[in-house]
Amino acid sequence: MPIDTEHPAPAPDTVVSVDPRSGRATRTSLHTTTDDEVTAISRRAASAFPRFERAGRAGRARFLRAIAARLELHRDEIVSTAQRETGLPTARLTSEHARTCYQMRLFADVLDEGGYLEAAIDHAADTPMGPGPDLRRLLVPIGPVAVFGASNFPLAFSVPGGDTASALAAGCPVIVKAHGSHPLTSALCHQAMAEAAAETDIPADVVALVFGQDAGAALVADAHITAVGFTGSLSGAQALLRIIGDREQPIPFYGELSSINPLVVTPAAAAARGAEIARGFVTSITASGGQLCTKPGIVFVPDGPDGDVTVDSLRSALAASDHQVLLNERIHRSYLADSTALASLPAVDSVLTGTAAGPDGFSVTPMVLTLRAGDLSEASTTECFGPIAVVARYGDEAELRTGLERLPASLTGTVHAEAEESGLLAGLSELLRPKAGRLIFNGFPTGVRVSWAQTHGGPWPATNTVHTSVGTTSIRRFLRPVTWQDAPQPVLPEELRDGEHRIPLRLNGTLILP
Amino acid sequence: MPIDTEHPAPAPDTVVSVDPRSGRATRTSLHTTTDDEVTAISRRAASAFPRFERAGRAGRARFLRAIAARLELHRDEIVSTAQRETGLPTARLTSEHARTCYQMRLFADVLDEGGYLEAAIDHAADTPMGPGPDLRRLLVPIGPVAVFGASNFPLAFSVPGGDTASALAAGCPVIVKAHGSHPLTSALCHQAMAEAAAETDIPADVVALVFGQDAGAALVADAHITAVGFTGSLSGAQALLRIIGDREQPIPFYGELSSINPLVVTPAAAAARGAEIARGFVTSITASGGQLCTKPGIVFVPDGPDGDVTVDSLRSALAASDHQVLLNERIHRSYLADSTALASLPAVDSVLTGTAAGPDGFSVTPMVLTLRAGDLSEASTTECFGPIAVVARYGDEAELRTGLERLPASLTGTVHAEAEESGLLAGLSELLRPKAGRLIFNGFPTGVRVSWAQTHGGPWPATNTVHTSVGTTSIRRFLRPVTWQDAPQPVLPEELRDGEHRIPLRLNGTLILP
Repeated sequence: MPIDTEHPAPAPDTVVSVDPRSGRATRTSLHTTTDDEVTAISRRAASAFPRFERAGRAGRARFLRAIAARLELHRDEIVSTAQRETGLPTARLTSEHARTCYQMRLFADVLDEGGYLEAAIDHAADTPMGPGPDLRRLLVPIGPVAVFGASNFPLAFSVPGGDTASALAAGCPVIVKAHGSHPLTSALCHQAMAEAAAETDIPADVVALVFGQDAGAALVADAHITAVGFTGSLSGAQALLRIIGDREQPIPFYGELSSINPLVVTPAAAAARGAEIARGFVTSITASGGQLCTKPGIVFVPDGPDGDVTVDSLRSALAASDHQVLLNERIHRSYLADSTALASLPAVDSVLTGTAAGPDGFSVTPMVLTLRAGDLSEASTTECFGPIAVVARYGDEAELRTGLERLPASLTGTVHAEAEESGLLAGLSELLRPKAGRLIFNGFPTGVRVSWAQTHGGPWPATNTVHTSVGTTSIRRFLRPVTWQDAPQPVLPEELRDGEHRIPLRLNGTLILP
Repeated sequence: MPIDTEHPAPAPDTVVSVDPRSGRATRTSLHTTTDDEVTAISRRAASAFPRFERAGRAGRARFLRAIAARLELHRDEIVSTAQRETGLPTARLTSEHARTCYQMRLFADVLDEGGYLEAAIDHAADTPMGPGPDLRRLLVPIGPVAVFGASNFPLAFSVPGGDTASALAAGCPVIVKAHGSHPLTSALCHQAMAEAAAETDIPADVVALVFGQDAGAALVADAHITAVGFTGSLSGAQALLRIIGDREQPIPFYGELSSINPLVVTPAAAAARGAEIARGFVTSITASGGQLCTKPGIVFVPDGPDGDVTVDSLRSALAASDHQVLLNERIHRSYLADSTALASLPAVDSVLTGTAAGPDGFSVTPMVLTLRAGDLSEASTTECFGPIAVVARYGDEAELRTGLERLPASLTGTVHAEAEESGLLAGLSELLRPKAGRLIFNGFPTGVRVSWAQTHGGPWPATNTVHTSVGTTSIRRFLRPVTWQDAPQPVLPEELRDGEHRIPLRLNGTLILP
């Protein structure tokens, strides 16, 4: 699908906005950021850093709440712009907008509560190795953070998304590399955040935006950047990791990359509610055009009549499903190539499809391939972005295990089982846990609740980190510990001074609450 | 100083033990570990991993306490062997032994308390984005960990050291690459740990030992290894980071590398107690042969009579200090080369020395160079292992700041100041905090208390991590979060089940204590 650009061709540094439903590109007034501009932006972020930290937890909480309010003020324009740039349904984007505002306010609550600081005080004491000094520990922000917006979440994983919210809450200035799929949405969100900064007396340079792939690379190489948050492809991540490898000072890279998200239907679950699970599965793989990082890319279904009913229901639900519009030309091209390659694997027994792709833009046909769990290979277990999944049939638990063991690690693993299958359930949980960051029971992995107990992460290639990128604890990525030894009271951060403690504190090893 | 090896020359795979006081090498019955052996050891560690985790917090706490008891049982042999292999004083090694046992027991306490699990439960609830599922989060061990023993701490940062203790506490099997400076000490400690495993029903493969640089490289490349703990040189770290860069699956590298540890004497502190500070400084830079990662490598002293008295006292204390035996031939050779290069820098005003090196083994002369803070350069601010330091004189606060700003980041930063200098003290603390993980006031950075509030880490090149490597929170390096969504009770780890909670828990966002 060639892009139908306007004539005359835009200047090479002009940012274009593409409507994926038509494939039509429109010139914007935005331009790609030059290396010199990136350097200047990073330097300004670094010099705003100490002032931003001095705003304190209360000042940053005010700022985050003001961002939420400004995003709400501009909601209609943001959602309609995002809709034009991504082709995602308005209902989905409205929900994503609500989630984005909720996330900002949740991190403000995290700041109010203060437990994330991991405050600890060890009073001076005799130890088996002699007298020990007074030690007081707190987490402090690491410095300016580069965030790469994701194609598939123009709000919740982009300019005002989770990486940004958690880094700002930590006290780190953020420079976002806007995703090429939604530049106008990015600029609108950035504008709302700039208004919130002005309103709450936060330095304007605390949130910045750059455009273009070269600008992203320059940002990651910049000496002022202290960490990178990234949601995107494995190949994109590997390119950025190479840049980090060439830096004089290595920095943490928090990447969320690739995930196949297995879903197991046990024999009893197939018998009890195979058709219902199949319908839920089709909804889950077609939601947002199948472009969710938690899309269940592979479902294990037992052999036999109950499994057959499950697959038949899946076939019907898929046949009734609409064709889907993908986010951009690259994803569209990849889907066409990868789905064709998958469908022609010798191991594939049958190919089920939904409504055929429409004639315009980046439209595609939803697709499900069936094969044997014992025939799973690297090719059939690699994530394919878009409304496509694999049904792996299994004859017995041994074949199911063989199939699961061949899978790479994922963000999630899901089991549909019945209460009487306690042994099988325990075994599957144990098998899946080393391969996932979230285990779901009798549900679907799409839909990631933003809360305190959430984990959105998993072993490589799902992520390359030991932290979550969604939920309150994602703030830990942008903090490092500092200890003050025998410090005079005025030098200490107020949370560590003697007197009334207003946050959770570990005092001589014992956790105490305010 | 050529090594005086025995005749006939040992086979190439024989591990030798060298006495640094004489430089004499003795053949041992140990041999360097082959690549095939490394592969087998890693595979066994991986297969012991689930069994080790099943021992639970209580089982692992018992194991750690048994290790401490076994290390104590074999203390005399361990300390005397370490003394022969490192040349460190017996008093220092006895204290290090006590610290090592204390550390094991402290991590057992951490397991008993359970707060390190960061347990959180969010009950199912309505959210602005619709109904949210029940989520329950816990940290779980990541898998087998490779630990590189340090030359300068044959116990507390080697086989039974902090990386090992924290990884075992987390539930991760550990494979230690023994440092070539103390192979027999390493084997003895490993033996004590193996006895503790047998005694407490822990799989023997949970602690393993490999010898030789090639074995270390093979270990880091091995697919079963999930993290690396390293204390050593910047160049050693960079070599291992390159191996990690070539792995199919990237893994976290927790390295503690290089640290200059600035110490500032303010004008009032010089006036009040310059001589006392100078004596403490000389003790601090000559302790353990100046081979501590927290050795203050540079001290800022004001111009004027009080500063002159400080430097005079330093000269006297240094002149009275003994010559020092370094740990091995490589460190000895580096010291001779680097101290000569430092002393001949054009900026150096004078060279102060201690007792001249003895004729045998790896003996060296303690040395202090004086220059102007404004003349500090990369060459004069790079860590030099051994009993050497720089005195940087400053005329005013501006020159002091100029000097401090030229320093790379460190593990520690120290200020000696008087109460009346509150403005200067605040300014220096603010300037040093971005450059250190621990700020010390009116003390010395050597001596790292093992406790809950400790931080042993700092920005690059001190470390490359956002975690500490000493103290209870170092356990976080070897854990990753997992969330169970809508899980049946029996599938959940016992800490997350409904009922009486015995560990700190964040319930619907509120931290509650047991």
